[in-house]
Amino acid sequence: MSDIPALEALKQALRRLPGVGPKSAQRMAFHLLERDREGARRIAQALSEAVERVIRCRRCNNFSESELCDICSSPRRDGSLLCIVESPSDLISLDQSGVYNGLYFVLMGRLSPLDGIGPEDIGIPRLEALLDEGGVKEVVLATNLTVEGEATAHYIGELVRQRNIKATRIAYGVPIGGELEYTDRMTLARALSGRREA
Amino acid sequence: MSDIPALEALKQALRRLPGVGPKSAQRMAFHLLERDREGARRIAQALSEAVERVIRCRRCNNFSESELCDICSSPRRDGSLLCIVESPSDLISLDQSGVYNGLYFVLMGRLSPLDGIGPEDIGIPRLEALLDEGGVKEVVLATNLTVEGEATAHYIGELVRQRNIKATRIAYGVPIGGELEYTDRMTLARALSGRREA
Ligand SMILES: [Zn+2]
Ligand SMILES: [Zn+2]
Repeated sequence: MSDIPALEALKQALRRLPGVGPKSAQRMAFHLLERDREGARRIAQALSEAVERVIRCRRCNNFSESELCDICSSPRRDGSLLCIVESPSDLISLDQSGVYNGLYFVLMGRLSPLDGIGPEDIGIPRLEALLDEGGVKEVVLATNLTVEGEATAHYIGELVRQRNIKATRIAYGVPIGGELEYTDRMTLARALSGRREA
Repeated sequence: MSDIPALEALKQALRRLPGVGPKSAQRMAFHLLERDREGARRIAQALSEAVERVIRCRRCNNFSESELCDICSSPRRDGSLLCIVESPSDLISLDQSGVYNGLYFVLMGRLSPLDGIGPEDIGIPRLEALLDEGGVKEVVLATNLTVEGEATAHYIGELVRQRNIKATRIAYGVPIGGELEYTDRMTLARALSGRREA
């Protein structure tokens, strides 16, 4: 197939998708070219538009198409509560549990000294500035219940308490080593309801 | 996240990829937007270019960027041998086995009466025209060793013999129910060498 550079380039490009190896990339490329060229066009367009339009909310760091996201700019949200999550998917999972009505801060990662990921890499200075603005009365630490998530929660808990703000940690329900993204709604609701001081 | 239509559109679009459900689509979208926007641009471009440039070889039906693919137009290929495969991936797997130096015909499917897939849908009329041109002395039936692949091989074998052309079927090595795409080179080489009259 060395005579089909556009196909080779497509297979290579698709491997940039997480979890996609050479075999999957080939299957995807063939499927689109054989049976769903309209789908291929649509994916191409959606990618271009998302890259162009999706930015980060300047307050919570979540994906957004405006400078301030819908959650941060909603008057119905309780601004005295700030929930810290590792990723936008965790934010979605928690918010869909329906138990929480405060604001969020998305770290876009977790502390991981072995990988060279320190406080600056996960937006801690911005979080501190946000806390120093005042108004937040409780910080809900909702990082994953993994070793690194726990360490991150511990680290942020210290910063929160130094400012005389209450720090709580989500608790019951999420299994040890579990990832929020793959936890069901009910469990997340219980974990949020059962949060305790960190 | 209802405030991010471009992100929602991207997640929806990515679900057109085979094997990608809602969770994977979200993970892919977040990964690209969070960590690999250059990758997103590259995939978008590769998709657009492939859709625009990749056509079907008018002789073998395989993907190609020219009217006649490299294999069909190669003077080093033995034009008296024609190998019938279900898909371009099978063609690649067989060709990489290094045992076969003839030409190919890609069905882009297999007979499947239950799914309403008949001879016209897999290019049988074109294959018959190709055989009627003369020059082919042996047709190697290399459809998958599945029930439908066997039925397809049987059906084509009849058409081939009606024209007094030898029909062989790949044999040893590929396990019953096995898919060529996931079979290793050595096994494919054995299956080709051990082919017999169909
Ligand atoms: Zn926000
Ligand atoms: Zn060809």
